[in-house]
Amino acid sequence: MSGHERRSRLVVLAGPTAVGKGTVAAHIREHHPEVWISVSATTRPPRPGEVNGVHYWFVSDEEFDNMIAEDDLLEWAVVHKSARYGTPRQPVDLALASGRPAMLEIDLQGARQVRRTMPEALFVFLKPPSWEELVRRLVGRGTETEEERERRLETARAELAAESEFDTTIVNHEVHAAANELVALMTLD
Amino acid sequence: MSGHERRSRLVVLAGPTAVGKGTVAAHIREHHPEVWISVSATTRPPRPGEVNGVHYWFVSDEEFDNMIAEDDLLEWAVVHKSARYGTPRQPVDLALASGRPAMLEIDLQGARQVRRTMPEALFVFLKPPSWEELVRRLVGRGTETEEERERRLETARAELAAESEFDTTIVNHEVHAAANELVALMTLD
Repeated sequence: MSGHERRSRLVVLAGPTAVGKGTVAAHIREHHPEVWISVSATTRPPRPGEVNGVHYWFVSDEEFDNMIAEDDLLEWAVVHKSARYGTPRQPVDLALASGRPAMLEIDLQGARQVRRTMPEALFVFLKPPSWEELVRRLVGRGTETEEERERRLETARAELAAESEFDTTIVNHEVHAAANELVALMTLD
Repeated sequence: MSGHERRSRLVVLAGPTAVGKGTVAAHIREHHPEVWISVSATTRPPRPGEVNGVHYWFVSDEEFDNMIAEDDLLEWAVVHKSARYGTPRQPVDLALASGRPAMLEIDLQGARQVRRTMPEALFVFLKPPSWEELVRRLVGRGTETEEERERRLETARAELAAESEFDTTIVNHEVHAAANELVALMTLD
């Protein structure tokens, strides 16, 4: 007796900071409940409206250390010099084992780690419609210093160059279309 | 920087066959979304209306074998001589690490296994209002042979005797009240 004939293929969505990965993931969560999306563990505190176990698992530094020690994380990274984020391993395995379409929405460092252990995953690069649009999203608030602004743009240039490491690219002109393209990649395979 | 001050305590709900554990769990899932409920892996096929990853993770026998081999299950058991059911370990750890109220709804064999590895959990026995009520639920359909009926009642007697192994008992007079008692145990601790 068998539940499903075969494992599903993991889709890893990554891209530059501020390209809109989180918005695309939120759109899929709302409109495509058949897709399983990994819930990351993080050591940063919850923001208003964020639900523990839905948007993130909010854990202490000590618990995060334990997960690293037990090899319970598929990938993890330090973001903005303090908070750590990671992908719990077993929930991903369960989703794939049960044949459910499954995706991770992670940063570039994380995607590179996942590729080392799961090269058979489909790596999708989310790209801004243009360099100008990414700059607008990155520095739009105008509250940073010139030095901070330059640093962000430098990082963005390096992040955009990572596109060639990916299996395929989706341009994020509009969240609805980008989400649908991604779901099609997941389910028509 | 820390997400939560402390781990939550796992609540394990068990009881005799047909006492209504699944109905109590479904009520909590609907009315108390703050409570995390473990999703079991099973090798039996989905029934109509059951959603993969929500009610169960439906996996093949081979995937289930892998989970056993990797020590990825907190407990598992064979039910009705064919299908296997088990509790994936890491999701439980994540829920507890993040401080979220968390419960397992499992059978008596499973509860005994969990007690060996997590004796600090709170073990709750769900009890029928009376022996007559349990008999009614067990043999209500009247389609079984006399021999089958006797076997079921014998099992039920043995299962009821397990009450003394538990930390506390909730009598399932009515699903709403039983669910509220259980949630109070989880969140007022």
